[in-house]
Amino acid sequence: MNLRKPAFSALFTCLLAAGFSGIASAASPNDPATLGKLRDAAMQSDWSYQRLEDMTDLVGPRLSGSAGDAAAVEQVAAAMRALGAKVTLQPVKVPHWVRGEEKGELVDYKGRPANITQRVVLTALGGSGATPASGLVAPIVRVRDFDELQARAAEVKGAIVLFDVVFDQGMADRGLAGNAYGQGSRYRSTGPARAAELGAVAALVRSVGGADYRLPHTGATNMKDGQRIPAAAVTAEDAMLIGRLLKRGPVKLKLTLTPQILPDADSFNVIADLPGSEKPEEVVIVSGHLDSWDLGTGAHDDATGVTASMGVLHTIKQLGLQPRRTIRMVAWANEENGLRGGNAYFQANKDKLEKQYAAIESDGGAGRTFGVQAGIRREAEKYFAPLQKALLPIGAGVLNRRDSASGADVHQLEAGGVPSFMPYVDTSAYFDYHHTPADTFDKVDPLNMKRHVAVLTALTWFLANTDDPIGRAPDQK
Amino acid sequence: MNLRKPAFSALFTCLLAAGFSGIASAASPNDPATLGKLRDAAMQSDWSYQRLEDMTDLVGPRLSGSAGDAAAVEQVAAAMRALGAKVTLQPVKVPHWVRGEEKGELVDYKGRPANITQRVVLTALGGSGATPASGLVAPIVRVRDFDELQARAAEVKGAIVLFDVVFDQGMADRGLAGNAYGQGSRYRSTGPARAAELGAVAALVRSVGGADYRLPHTGATNMKDGQRIPAAAVTAEDAMLIGRLLKRGPVKLKLTLTPQILPDADSFNVIADLPGSEKPEEVVIVSGHLDSWDLGTGAHDDATGVTASMGVLHTIKQLGLQPRRTIRMVAWANEENGLRGGNAYFQANKDKLEKQYAAIESDGGAGRTFGVQAGIRREAEKYFAPLQKALLPIGAGVLNRRDSASGADVHQLEAGGVPSFMPYVDTSAYFDYHHTPADTFDKVDPLNMKRHVAVLTALTWFLANTDDPIGRAPDQK
Repeated sequence: MNLRKPAFSALFTCLLAAGFSGIASAASPNDPATLGKLRDAAMQSDWSYQRLEDMTDLVGPRLSGSAGDAAAVEQVAAAMRALGAKVTLQPVKVPHWVRGEEKGELVDYKGRPANITQRVVLTALGGSGATPASGLVAPIVRVRDFDELQARAAEVKGAIVLFDVVFDQGMADRGLAGNAYGQGSRYRSTGPARAAELGAVAALVRSVGGADYRLPHTGATNMKDGQRIPAAAVTAEDAMLIGRLLKRGPVKLKLTLTPQILPDADSFNVIADLPGSEKPEEVVIVSGHLDSWDLGTGAHDDATGVTASMGVLHTIKQLGLQPRRTIRMVAWANEENGLRGGNAYFQANKDKLEKQYAAIESDGGAGRTFGVQAGIRREAEKYFAPLQKALLPIGAGVLNRRDSASGADVHQLEAGGVPSFMPYVDTSAYFDYHHTPADTFDKVDPLNMKRHVAVLTALTWFLANTDDPIGRAPDQK
Repeated sequence: MNLRKPAFSALFTCLLAAGFSGIASAASPNDPATLGKLRDAAMQSDWSYQRLEDMTDLVGPRLSGSAGDAAAVEQVAAAMRALGAKVTLQPVKVPHWVRGEEKGELVDYKGRPANITQRVVLTALGGSGATPASGLVAPIVRVRDFDELQARAAEVKGAIVLFDVVFDQGMADRGLAGNAYGQGSRYRSTGPARAAELGAVAALVRSVGGADYRLPHTGATNMKDGQRIPAAAVTAEDAMLIGRLLKRGPVKLKLTLTPQILPDADSFNVIADLPGSEKPEEVVIVSGHLDSWDLGTGAHDDATGVTASMGVLHTIKQLGLQPRRTIRMVAWANEENGLRGGNAYFQANKDKLEKQYAAIESDGGAGRTFGVQAGIRREAEKYFAPLQKALLPIGAGVLNRRDSASGADVHQLEAGGVPSFMPYVDTSAYFDYHHTPADTFDKVDPLNMKRHVAVLTALTWFLANTDDPIGRAPDQK
């Protein structure tokens, strides 16, 4: 072979370049082979699903301040220590609200036969005040929105207000479940306080969710101490019943709610680190929230988020890999009724947010996962092609760029510039179970759970190792 | 026109025959025009749907012996009197079982963290005995069938038996919902007594039904006084939880059930007659049962059956028609936990069963109605063609002949030779709601209700007027 001929020389250059490129690729932690191995390992493991079973079956409900909350902290910390992660418990003072008796009875309405009262299925909202132990009786004023509330202010005084907002399942089916939820949940969050300001003695909201099995959906409501009135969610069926009876004439409800607000309790953000090899001070968070409501076992909301995040560390450890940046699994305290965990972390890190390289939170359940929602700037989008390519074979290759993609616990980080991510999940059925007694282990499909872990693992690994300038979060509105 | 020509003569004969046939048809109460008018009047009326709303919204649950039961008797009787029907209240002594507190907690299992117990969602079965007010604690023995119960008799003594039989929704979807129900309900009916015989201290059954919203499905269980132990239905989710925990090790349940069995109470079969013009002593029954379980408002089970049967009389009255035989609407007392109403009627009529011309009961809810199930002999099938033809336009032209087609309340009549009928209804979703808190008015589709009334009306009218020898019921096995 005569190497002095230009043609051969060019060929050699090409081969050299190709060879160099090949070597560089093999050396990069984000090469297709590594991402593929992580994806496949996650798809072949039921480790996270087993942790999900442990959390929901052995601990069960994990309302902030409860014994379940404390037990879950221990359980997650122990599992992470067993993997060899560096575990830190970050103390967080959490609200300690305890559900009491809850009972509703329609005691007067037009056409009521003698001795008949109609039971209303309801559940207290987190933060609800209490009625007298013997209950209170008042007429119901049903409103469809805040305008109607204001317009009927005179009737509201001394009454029980029912915010009767129908969950838009059609919107959820069109991929906008979060928006449908938001339409209803704003009445749950702020309605009782606004009713209290007008002199209402209690407030009801129609359950925010899509199923028709007479399930009450609880959730938080925001009332300051001066405004605190008894507040409950009624089932869709009971809201409809009240609506029909109100067409006949006035309706009176006897409401008994005896929740208690105890002094703030001790809880913890469970933080488990896989230290980075090159930039250990730069952190990529992968997380879910450890607390849940008390009615079900918080399987989709959010044991899946926590145990899938735990599975990211498991998968990486299983393959003997070490990331360049530190990968930090966080099981947040008190997402549901206070966000105290996310707030404590933000407060502790707000002066060095540049070290928070990226933050992922999974808090939409483990339905079918299509890909990733990315709170990144438009110019960063192109760098995620290798990740998308690695996730394509499991139907999760979508990158849905948004100006904001933070779960509630990392929202302050995102507002501070930390690029945030969440799995892109089919949530059309999520609000059927969310915050109800029916959010249980059996609702989680094992294959969907594996896919969820695979997406979180590939995403976390990718962020922890990328050389690309993905930059900071888009400006938040 | 030369009429002597044979061709013309034949034509004339044909026309004569056709004309005669036409006249005969117009004169018969079962001619297509009359059946069509009844069908169309029912399809254009929401009278039954309004009565359904009255019954479920104003009265609500109607458990035998309760105030709701009494109020429903009054409500139906008043509505029937208002139509001009001849109303009789047939006294029936009914069981008076009252639900008390009901609570389940898994208080010990392998892997249980300190201070944690797991709530089990359950509801007492009708006829259940009571635990001590402070509850009882015992290990759970989970069995899949009676063979396993016998094989594990030694473990059963002193234990709480869980009959964990999965509802076969696939079977229900294939049109065999009743069979799927029967596979589970036999464990509910007889399981607790059999467990008691082996020394069990309580019994649980997995709820018999298809939905996955952590709904307990109540129902009757048959225990003699000596066998009476506490017995409850757990939700499918809780049965699965117990099954998973039992794979880890022994599981103990604290069970608190405080139902009471009070002295038998007074109730009534509400009987409303449209007397026949030609054979008033011959009776065609159209019926449903007035009592319901106490958790929901018994909309599908069986307010639809009662109010659709009431609608038969309303439709016929609306058109100013009088049947040849007497049409008798019956709202049966105490189908759910005793069958005392059906039994009282049988006892009062057993010596002249030949006067009970036919008996219809609707007790499968008001899903989409396809036609009629007919407990008639094969040779009688052909006579129903005019009825089928009249119901064809509303998609209800099916005649499903069976050896038995009696609802529970008319079963003794059928066994005594009375041809029995029920609407042929899509029941694939019926057992999602049946015997649960979610069996409420909103679950009934108004159009399906109209179709249901139309089928019952046409069928009742047809039977009350037919000249055909439809004969007696097939021999019962």
